Amino acid sequence: AGRCLRYGALGDDVMARLRWMGEVLAPALRAALRARGEGVDLRAITAQALQMGDECHSRNTAASALLLRELAAELAGGAEAREVLRFLAGNHYWYLNFSMAAAKLATSAAHGVPHSTLVTAFARNGVEVGIRVSGLGEEWFTAPATQVRGLYFAGYGPEDANPDIGDSAITETYGLGGFSLAAAPAITGFVGGTVDSALRTSREMARIALARHEAYRLPALGGVGAPVGIDLRAVLDTGIAPVITTGISHREPGIGQIGAGLTHAPLECFRKALAALPLEGMPGPPEAPEEEPTGQGAPAPERIGPDGGPGSGGG
Amino acid sequence: AGRCLRYGALGDDVMARLRWMGEVLAPALRAALRARGEGVDLRAITAQALQMGDECHSRNTAASALLLRELAAELAGGAEAREVLRFLAGNHYWYLNFSMAAAKLATSAAHGVPHSTLVTAFARNGVEVGIRVSGLGEEWFTAPATQVRGLYFAGYGPEDANPDIGDSAITETYGLGGFSLAAAPAITGFVGGTVDSALRTSREMARIALARHEAYRLPALGGVGAPVGIDLRAVLDTGIAPVITTGISHREPGIGQIGAGLTHAPLECFRKALAALPLEGMPGPPEAPEEEPTGQGAPAPERIGPDGGPGSGGG
Repeated sequence: AGRCLRYGALGDDVMARLRWMGEVLAPALRAALRARGEGVDLRAITAQALQMGDECHSRNTAASALLLRELAAELAGGAEAREVLRFLAGNHYWYLNFSMAAAKLATSAAHGVPHSTLVTAFARNGVEVGIRVSGLGEEWFTAPATQVRGLYFAGYGPEDANPDIGDSAITETYGLGGFSLAAAPAITGFVGGTVDSALRTSREMARIALARHEAYRLPALGGVGAPVGIDLRAVLDTGIAPVITTGISHREPGIGQIGAGLTHAPLECFRKALAALPLEGMPGPPEAPEEEPTGQGAPAPERIGPDGGPGSGGG
Repeated sequence: AGRCLRYGALGDDVMARLRWMGEVLAPALRAALRARGEGVDLRAITAQALQMGDECHSRNTAASALLLRELAAELAGGAEAREVLRFLAGNHYWYLNFSMAAAKLATSAAHGVPHSTLVTAFARNGVEVGIRVSGLGEEWFTAPATQVRGLYFAGYGPEDANPDIGDSAITETYGLGGFSLAAAPAITGFVGGTVDSALRTSREMARIALARHEAYRLPALGGVGAPVGIDLRAVLDTGIAPVITTGISHREPGIGQIGAGLTHAPLECFRKALAALPLEGMPGPPEAPEEEPTGQGAPAPERIGPDGGPGSGGG
């Protein structure tokens, strides 16, 4: 769908696209939402997309098509309807914007709980990466940015790559992306790895997560909930670093994305955060998350309303 | 999306829907296709949908959304655009119509090859089921229709069910449906079974298939091609009956679908066809289909153009 203002991409094409988004796309979406009369249930779209091969960070193909489907009838009334629908139909990453915003809202709601060791934010600026923790206020606990292991677009290689950059790792903080890698076997053709390694990654991430998401289910693991809520203590107890599926940015400005792959949040961030924790009044260790079903367990029904499905243990 | 004229559903609602399809939906689709100026690449949509949890017989959620996405811009120009787009957005089975038609065209192209034991059609009328074989002309080789094992909609049970009915098993004849069950782990919540049994089914079907499809890939099996082309001799050599994912129809007229599940093509059809085969001039046994990759193999790229991806053995 052409270059957007992302990962340092810059040029006349990027600026023209940005202006078009402000002048045509945004008003069209605003009008469609108003004509619709109710909001879009992003939680339901994410839940469905996890049944359709997305992990809603580095693969958003299904979610983008589902969101377009939700809005198509109302968008059809607008003056630039064809142009807008054609743009959205060609943009398989469109939903990432919504996935990130929803993740940020959800994890922000969990911020500020006294003594909580839940990680509520994770972001990278290409030089440093940092986490915030629910019980530790506004402070960022940082470490140098990591290299991303992955697959490069034609003509680029590791020597062109900037260290890990971007705020999209908020999706992992919310149980998506690398935590839900088992939902997206096809992504291994884009970020590297195998189907087995994708399943293994989601299983490993469950060991550092506080709970399973009650609506976001992983079909390839028998419909168990996505591991959600990174627990600082579990990361340090196990030595398992949170996995991130991410794009790779060129190290020079103006070029933009040159590949995609996997990386980890450095343990150093977590060590620094632990050292900052007040020890007085700490509660006991968290409940163990739900196990994957064995035998006859079928996945939960695909369509999960705003009230969510049945609870799935954990806290 | 309300009842359609399918599985014996009948009533004022069904007739009103049918008339609306003829008077509003069909002209809108025709106009959109003409405005588009080129056809829709159904092969590319099916290939993508297999990466997105569909097997394109009893689950068409992704493919229906992808097809709507392809046509949304052109549909937006029409007089009844909102009504049409709203209907299509609510119909997760829409693509089945196209999946069946494409399968019928593909298998018809393989019909009439002298001595070929490839099954080119499979259909059920609720009383009998029958197959046609490439080298055996227009004859149907029949057996009594089977019962479908599956899950029922609320208020219905096996005592309400008609034996296996419908022409949609043409999708299995083309490597989709039960043959691609490994692509659709979430379908087990609809037709029964587990993720493991879905993977096992696709592996078993490979034993009775002549080849792997070069564009239709199964991500959960490491991106191996869908088993395509039922070989009459392989069915009888192994005793493995082709699996079908299908809806369950009420046995009384007027009601329609009451569930969904799995059934098998009866071996009797294949025995009768074998007996009709002319023995003179028969070639040797077919080449073994490609094995699933082990280790580092990643799935093929998702987007496969009309020329298809690399060949995958068999054939």
